[in-house]
Amino acid sequence: MASSLISRQFAFSLQKNLRLSAPGCRYVSKAAPRTQVEFDYDGPSMKTSVPGPRSEELTKQLGQIQNVGAINFFCNYEESRGNYLVDVDGNRMLDIYTQISSIPIGYNHPDLLKLMSNPNNLSTLVNRPALGILPPENFPEKLTESLVSVAPSGMTRVQTMACGSCSNENAYKAMFIWYRNKERGHNNPSEEDLSSCIINQSPGCPELSILSFMGGFHGRTMGCLATTHSKAIHKLDVPSFDWPIAPFPRLQYPLEEFTRENAQEEVEDLIVKWRQKGKPVAGVVIEPIQAEGGDNHASSDFFRGLRDIARKHGCAFHVDEVQTGGGTTGKMWAHEHWGLEDPADIVSFSKKLLTGGYYYKDEFQADKAYRIFNTWMGDPSKNLILSEVLNVIRRENLLEEVTRSGKALMNGLFELQAQYPGMLSSARGVGTFCAIDICDDETRNRILNTARDKGILLGGCGDRSIRFRPALVFKEYHVHLFLNIFNDVLAQLK
Amino acid sequence: MASSLISRQFAFSLQKNLRLSAPGCRYVSKAAPRTQVEFDYDGPSMKTSVPGPRSEELTKQLGQIQNVGAINFFCNYEESRGNYLVDVDGNRMLDIYTQISSIPIGYNHPDLLKLMSNPNNLSTLVNRPALGILPPENFPEKLTESLVSVAPSGMTRVQTMACGSCSNENAYKAMFIWYRNKERGHNNPSEEDLSSCIINQSPGCPELSILSFMGGFHGRTMGCLATTHSKAIHKLDVPSFDWPIAPFPRLQYPLEEFTRENAQEEVEDLIVKWRQKGKPVAGVVIEPIQAEGGDNHASSDFFRGLRDIARKHGCAFHVDEVQTGGGTTGKMWAHEHWGLEDPADIVSFSKKLLTGGYYYKDEFQADKAYRIFNTWMGDPSKNLILSEVLNVIRRENLLEEVTRSGKALMNGLFELQAQYPGMLSSARGVGTFCAIDICDDETRNRILNTARDKGILLGGCGDRSIRFRPALVFKEYHVHLFLNIFNDVLAQLK
Repeated sequence: MASSLISRQFAFSLQKNLRLSAPGCRYVSKAAPRTQVEFDYDGPSMKTSVPGPRSEELTKQLGQIQNVGAINFFCNYEESRGNYLVDVDGNRMLDIYTQISSIPIGYNHPDLLKLMSNPNNLSTLVNRPALGILPPENFPEKLTESLVSVAPSGMTRVQTMACGSCSNENAYKAMFIWYRNKERGHNNPSEEDLSSCIINQSPGCPELSILSFMGGFHGRTMGCLATTHSKAIHKLDVPSFDWPIAPFPRLQYPLEEFTRENAQEEVEDLIVKWRQKGKPVAGVVIEPIQAEGGDNHASSDFFRGLRDIARKHGCAFHVDEVQTGGGTTGKMWAHEHWGLEDPADIVSFSKKLLTGGYYYKDEFQADKAYRIFNTWMGDPSKNLILSEVLNVIRRENLLEEVTRSGKALMNGLFELQAQYPGMLSSARGVGTFCAIDICDDETRNRILNTARDKGILLGGCGDRSIRFRPALVFKEYHVHLFLNIFNDVLAQLK
Repeated sequence: MASSLISRQFAFSLQKNLRLSAPGCRYVSKAAPRTQVEFDYDGPSMKTSVPGPRSEELTKQLGQIQNVGAINFFCNYEESRGNYLVDVDGNRMLDIYTQISSIPIGYNHPDLLKLMSNPNNLSTLVNRPALGILPPENFPEKLTESLVSVAPSGMTRVQTMACGSCSNENAYKAMFIWYRNKERGHNNPSEEDLSSCIINQSPGCPELSILSFMGGFHGRTMGCLATTHSKAIHKLDVPSFDWPIAPFPRLQYPLEEFTRENAQEEVEDLIVKWRQKGKPVAGVVIEPIQAEGGDNHASSDFFRGLRDIARKHGCAFHVDEVQTGGGTTGKMWAHEHWGLEDPADIVSFSKKLLTGGYYYKDEFQADKAYRIFNTWMGDPSKNLILSEVLNVIRRENLLEEVTRSGKALMNGLFELQAQYPGMLSSARGVGTFCAIDICDDETRNRILNTARDKGILLGGCGDRSIRFRPALVFKEYHVHLFLNIFNDVLAQLK
C-alpha cells in the first residue's frame, strides 16, 4: 500500500553514497539541517548500473509495442518519494530532472496520497466530463481555488487543456481569432470567410503568422512545431508554415543588467517584412527562459521591450510558461520577474501545473462558442490535484524555499565552474531553474551518465548544457548533497 | 461517499415520467426485462427545465473565468450512474450523448469505483510520469492487457497520447516521416534537411499533404484542423495548409449493398493532382462514419477500394476511430465491419478508450527516438481505468448487448420514421452508433430541447441530424424507454 511509504527510514544510505573521502569534496560541512521532508529518503542508494537488468528486460518487452529509443529506465513509483526516484532495480536517485520538469512537489507527497484516498473524490476519477458542455458542480470553485488563485498579474480568465501542445495550439487560435476580428472591425464573418475556410483557403483560413524565436520550443503538434526551433529531430519531415523566426539574444553569463539586445530591432523588422509578404504577425510567442533550446536567458529589459513592440504593431504577446511556470523560478510565473507594466495577452502552462491551459486577457476570449473547444478541455481530476499542490506550496512556503535552494545551487555551480574552468561555464539560473554549459556534447553525456550511476538524475538541454529541474521540495540540504556528488563526478572525469 | 450510490433504488420514476397515456405510445409492451443494471436508475426524473436555476447560477460564475457559450448545464457526477446523468438541479436524464461519446460503460460503474478505491493504485494517480523516458514498471503489462488486447487485426504496436487531436497530429507526423524515408530510400537526413527544417523550410519541412474528406472531423489543432471540414466555426480565422479534400460518398439510407461510389475516382485524381503540384499525399485519413459531420456512412466496398487506392499510390491509410472506436458499433473498431484484407496503416482513438493514441504497423514506427514524443505521452491512470473497462466489456458481453440494443434502436427509428415521414428521414446506424435526419435545423433543435425537458439527453451533428451515442451499457430496456419518450416528443411537435 502506497501510504506505507511515508513511514520508512533509510538512515544509512547517505554515508554509503556520498564518498566522503573523494577529492575536492567540500560541501558536507555546509549541509543545511534536514527539516520538514519526512516523506523523503536520506540520500541516493545505487544497487546496479542504470538501466539495470530489470529495466532492460522491460524495455525489451515494451519494444514489442512501441519505440523505446528514449527510455532511460523503468520506475517503481510506489517506492519513490519526495526528491527520490526509485527504479525497478532498486536504485534510488536524487531526481533533479523530475519527469522533464513536471513533478511539482515530489513523488507521493503525503497530502496528495491523502487527497486521492478520499472517497469523495472517486467520482471525479471515473467520470471524465466534456468540460466545455457539461462541467461538474465544483468546476468554477476548483478553478478559482487553483488556477485563478495564482493567475499572473492582469489576468483573470483561464482555459484548461489536456497538455502543453494543445494549450499553445489553442492559444495561437485565440490570437488568430482576435487578430481577424480586429481587422474586420466586427466579429461577423462574411459568406466568403465561411465558405472558403471549410476548404482551407483564404480569406476564411487567412495567411496569418506567429513570430517565434530561434532556439525556442513550444510543442510538437503542427501549429506549435512551426514555432519550435530547438532541435532538428523535432521538426524533420513535418510540413510547416512560412512564419517569421527572430534571433534570441545571445548573452554572456552572468547576465549584465540593462543589456539592450539588438534582437528587438530584428523583431520589428520581421513584423514589418511579414506584413508586406501578406502574412501579418498575429502574435509573438516566447519562453521566459528557452528551456529545451539550452536554458537561454534574456534580460527583463529585452522582454519589456518586446512587449512594447508587440503592442505597437498590433500583435498579441504570448508568454509560454509550460516549462518555467509553477514556482520553479521562485515566483509562480517566471515572467513576473520582468516587472511588466502592461501584462502579457496570453500565458500558457502545463507540466508542473498538472493540467495544460492558458490564461488570457478578456479581449482574447473567443467571441463565439465552439471556436476554442474539444471533447475533454482538460481534466477535473488534474484540477483537484493541482488545488492541493498549491495548498502545499503555500503551507510549506515552497517559493521561498526555492529561492533559498536556488541561491545555494547557483553559488555551488559558480564555485565548481571556477574549479573546473575547462569543463564548466556559463552557470545561470533563476530560483532552482538553473543550467550550466559543459565543454562539449560528449563530455556532457559522460557527466550525465556518471552522475546517474552515482545516484543523481539530471537532464541535458541545448547542444551541451545540463539543466537542473528539481521539484519545489528540493531544499538546501538536497543542493549540498547534489553538489558533493557532482563534484566527485567532475573530479573523476576531468 | 460515492460507493453508496450503488445501493439506492428509484422504483417510481419510470411510471412518473413515461406519460403512458400520451398518444402513439406503442413501445411499453415491448419493454425488455431490466437485468444486470443494478447500478442504474429506473428512468428519468425531471424537477426543473434545463438548465435549471443552479446550473444558471454556476454558468454565470464560470462566465467570469472562461467562455461558457457551449455549456448545456452543470452536472452532479456523484449522483449520476449507469445511463443516467444527474444535473445540479436534481434532474435525472437518460444520457444518449455520453459526454460527446466518451463514457464507455456509464457513470460510476461499481467496478471502476472499486478499482479507484484500491490503495495500490494511489501512486499511479499522484505521480504522472514522462512515459517516453521513465515509464512505470507495469506499463508494458497494462498496455498489453488493455490496448494491445483489443488491437485491430494486423496491428501490434500502439502509441498513447493525451487526447484525440494529439493522437491524429502524431499519426500524421508518423506518416510524413514514413513517406520521406521511403522517398529517400534510407533514413539518413541530409545536412540540408537538418538545417532547413529548423527554419520551417523545405526540404527539411517538406511540402507533403494529407488527403481528407469533405464533412470529416479529425480534431482542432492546426494539423488536424487542416483535415477537418465539418463546420466553418471550427476553422474560421485559423491558417491552414493547401491539402487535397475529396468528396465523401453521399448515400441514400438504408445503404444499398455493393454501391460503388464515384468518390473513389476523385480520390485518385486528387492524389495525382497534388503530386503534380509538388505536395504529394503522404496519407489518406478517414472516419468509418463521419460523426461530427452528420453521421455520414459509406459502403464497406468504398472503404476497401480506398485502402487499395492508398496502397497503389504509396500513401498511408489512416482510419480515425476517435468517435467510432471502443465498441459502440458492436465491434471494438468500426472498420472491422469492412472486411479489409490488408489492414489499415494507422488507427487512431480517444474518447471511449479514455486515453488518446494510435495503433500502427511496424513500418510506421519512427526510426529514431524523440521524433514522436512529448512530456506525458498519455497517462497511466487512464490505462488503468481502460484495462478495467475492457474487463467489464468482456465480462458483461457488452459488444453483444450493443448489437442487440442497436437492432432495437434501429427498428424503433424505422417505425418512427414511417410514422412521421415529414419530420424524420434517413435513420441509419451500426450497433448503437445511430442517427436520424430531421426536416430542418430549427425542428431538430426543438426536438433536442423538448426531449431534454422530458429527461432524454441527445446531441446533434451535421446540419440537421440527431446522433445517438449511448454508453455500452445501454440495453434494450433503455432503447424502449427512449423510444417511448421520443415518440411523445415527436407527437407533441408534429
